[in-house]
Amino acid sequence: MVTNKFFPKKGPFPLKKILEKINCTNSVNNINNIKIHDIQSLSNANETDLTFLSSNKYENISLKTKAAACITSSNFSKLLPSKCLAINVKNVLFAVTQISRMFYPTADIDYPDKNLIESNKVKKKYSKVYFGSNVQIGKNVLIGKNTSIGSNSIIESNVKIGENCVIGSFVVLKSSIVYDNVNIQDGSKIGLKGFGFIPIKNKNLRTPHVGKVILKNGVEIGSNCTIDRGSLSDTILGENTFLDNQIHIAHNVKIGKNCMIAGQVGIAGSSSIGDNVMIGGQAGISGHLKIGNNVKIGGNSGVVNDIKDNSNVMGYPAKSLREFVKLREKNEK
Amino acid sequence: MVTNKFFPKKGPFPLKKILEKINCTNSVNNINNIKIHDIQSLSNANETDLTFLSSNKYENISLKTKAAACITSSNFSKLLPSKCLAINVKNVLFAVTQISRMFYPTADIDYPDKNLIESNKVKKKYSKVYFGSNVQIGKNVLIGKNTSIGSNSIIESNVKIGENCVIGSFVVLKSSIVYDNVNIQDGSKIGLKGFGFIPIKNKNLRTPHVGKVILKNGVEIGSNCTIDRGSLSDTILGENTFLDNQIHIAHNVKIGKNCMIAGQVGIAGSSSIGDNVMIGGQAGISGHLKIGNNVKIGGNSGVVNDIKDNSNVMGYPAKSLREFVKLREKNEK
Amino acid sequence: MVTNKFFPKKGPFPLKKILEKINCTNSVNNINNIKIHDIQSLSNANETDLTFLSSNKYENISLKTKAAACITSSNFSKLLPSKCLAINVKNVLFAVTQISRMFYPTADIDYPDKNLIESNKVKKKYSKVYFGSNVQIGKNVLIGKNTSIGSNSIIESNVKIGENCVIGSFVVLKSSIVYDNVNIQDGSKIGLKGFGFIPIKNKNLRTPHVGKVILKNGVEIGSNCTIDRGSLSDTILGENTFLDNQIHIAHNVKIGKNCMIAGQVGIAGSSSIGDNVMIGGQAGISGHLKIGNNVKIGGNSGVVNDIKDNSNVMGYPAKSLREFVKLREKNEK
Repeated sequence: MVTNKFFPKKGPFPLKKILEKINCTNSVNNINNIKIHDIQSLSNANETDLTFLSSNKYENISLKTKAAACITSSNFSKLLPSKCLAINVKNVLFAVTQISRMFYPTADIDYPDKNLIESNKVKKKYSKVYFGSNVQIGKNVLIGKNTSIGSNSIIESNVKIGENCVIGSFVVLKSSIVYDNVNIQDGSKIGLKGFGFIPIKNKNLRTPHVGKVILKNGVEIGSNCTIDRGSLSDTILGENTFLDNQIHIAHNVKIGKNCMIAGQVGIAGSSSIGDNVMIGGQAGISGHLKIGNNVKIGGNSGVVNDIKDNSNVMGYPAKSLREFVKLREKNEK
Repeated sequence: MVTNKFFPKKGPFPLKKILEKINCTNSVNNINNIKIHDIQSLSNANETDLTFLSSNKYENISLKTKAAACITSSNFSKLLPSKCLAINVKNVLFAVTQISRMFYPTADIDYPDKNLIESNKVKKKYSKVYFGSNVQIGKNVLIGKNTSIGSNSIIESNVKIGENCVIGSFVVLKSSIVYDNVNIQDGSKIGLKGFGFIPIKNKNLRTPHVGKVILKNGVEIGSNCTIDRGSLSDTILGENTFLDNQIHIAHNVKIGKNCMIAGQVGIAGSSSIGDNVMIGGQAGISGHLKIGNNVKIGGNSGVVNDIKDNSNVMGYPAKSLREFVKLREKNEK
Repeated sequence: MVTNKFFPKKGPFPLKKILEKINCTNSVNNINNIKIHDIQSLSNANETDLTFLSSNKYENISLKTKAAACITSSNFSKLLPSKCLAINVKNVLFAVTQISRMFYPTADIDYPDKNLIESNKVKKKYSKVYFGSNVQIGKNVLIGKNTSIGSNSIIESNVKIGENCVIGSFVVLKSSIVYDNVNIQDGSKIGLKGFGFIPIKNKNLRTPHVGKVILKNGVEIGSNCTIDRGSLSDTILGENTFLDNQIHIAHNVKIGKNCMIAGQVGIAGSSSIGDNVMIGGQAGISGHLKIGNNVKIGGNSGVVNDIKDNSNVMGYPAKSLREFVKLREKNEK
């Protein structure tokens, strides 16, 4: 079972109570005895959890989910295993947000960590770590040997940092797992909640963000970047992937190994990027896309569709370099 | 009368002295007894103030101004009420900058607030406020109950923050009025002077910025954003408007209610955005534009013209979605 | 001779040992007695230094280099003076990075400056300087009179700041020379290492960055900007050049005098910008380009080619304004 150390979880709740919350009491029978312990993604959910499905893109994993029940819409319920109870609703994301807020009522806004202590008061716990001045450390923070943390940085409770890392100044790290040999430059904010909410006039309903940010071995993050944590899944940067300055990585994004991402790039929520991908400066990638391995994306491009392995794309909307040049030549005749 | 708590004001000055400053002594007679108390926008100026007019876009409000006199050019002076003295100059903005600097000599650069005190020394004044460590608070700061301020943030003198707000770490708030239930994430800088100056070889002349930033109820500002205060008017974000990370809002911008603005968007000076507007990531909006209500602007677009209510635009320069798709299909044939 | 105060330098090394390091032992004879004291750019190198040449763009300066030897490839070795020993390699940048790491083993990552002291402990040395609270100052820092440094900023060892400067809060200044009357707003990070490395699967090889950032008289830097220091040359901003917020200037960029650069612009590595250049918001300029004097670049443009003096360009890839408008009219017919 996946445990979440970063946010206190309420529950378990009777499924009946959950369905009352989302005004969906008529659709399902025989649920009096079902208790739900958590809401999780299709692959992470276990037999006492609830999950959700809102697209046929995820058929491969939905058919294998172990979840007791799944919030979905009538057209997708056939993509669930028979023992998983389909709960059909009109607006899957709205229902999921409401339920997620029952289990995680404090993960929708980044309240300050009230357990921060100045590093010189907890130095003994971190004898082989170098701290600048005014570094704030939360509870249960683990930091590996030969790691440096620059002045004024904040490492919130339960964050784990590996060995031989160099963390700059004015960095915030929360809800994050940082492996070894990771380098984060000054002013970057890692693990804050993503830009997710159900738009409601005069009072948007914020999505709880209980996912983490995971930075694998050898990752480099430039200065003044923002990397948001996931909502129900994690935001992940693979081994040896390097980010330049002022890059924004939204919630739930997965980036592979050995990628090179130049300054001011933005990657919108839930997109996945393969291995060995090179992205030029100021390029933007829309949400929920799949970018393959060994892809090259030209600077300033706007990517709005999935990109196959080994492609070389450019422009807005980004197309293959060959088409881009052909189109340009034709237009400029 | 509008009072400005954020900057010390000089004056009143005899109008004659003001005209000498801008080398405009011949153009007006019978001004020996006129004293000017302030320089204000067309709508905020009262009977002892000077105002300015440099475009026929503002005819509606110029005809109603109460100002004693108005810096303008000969072609616009007919748009002023008869009792408002028209002062015709060649370069309105240069003259206004010179005069504005007479009244507000310290509002052209963001000098550090010398009245900052660490929050634990003024805790008694803010008994229902949570402060992280090393929070700096200026003079006459008001903070509502149940508001939290993260570590290392700076709240400069005369700023007002409402109830139930969550302000992150490494935030700067100056020249700002923040209503209730506002959320500002780590590293955002709110209320700094805008990018305004008269370009002069080897020594640009900076425009004083005496306007405020106003964040209405329920606004959310992401991480590492910059929202500049106005020059003579204010920069305003309406109720329940949400901004993602790394967004730049320039001086004098007005944004309506219930807007959703995605990561890395930039809005240039003096543009106004209606209610319920959605702006995709990395889009840019030029200065002095009017974007209507319920407009949708695609990610990565560059908007260089006014946009009517209920439009859906995309591209660079941004055009209607229908035209954008038609043009693309035609070009790719 | 150019001395580098910011990084400890190793050496001198026998040229023979250097060639062994880059696996290039066969190509040159009679080098037993040659000792190399430093690796420098073509114009900065003196008679005991090594330099490098990887493009015919630099013929003007390569023919005049005083360097003892030059890492280059066989097709460029004719661009060197006869007394400069040409060392031909397959991958010039890889060899230069390896050699640069021999001389400057600690300039590849921004390790925290361990000599920082809180400013109130060194106030006596800076009697005419205003410091906010929690300002950290390194060793051998020079600061001119009437300069202010905002709270929480970090001025690392050997940085020099002139008179009448206003440095905001949460600023980092390292490896930098700041002239008089410079204004740097809150949250900007100046002088960090650039985004330079030899991509190697699973372990990129970082380029040492031993260059500086030089901000000439009257420069203004907006809020949350990032200006990276050079690798072997410097990053330079000329007199009276003004930058808006959230701008990224990469390593080795040279910007002339009296430029105006609007918000969220990015300039990639080693490009040079002339005098009196105006760049609109969100524009991007690729690396290794030459932008002339008096050039205007429209907002949101992507510049991928050199631009001649006095040009007015727009679009992606940026073309002359005349062509841009013509092409648009043709396409929209």
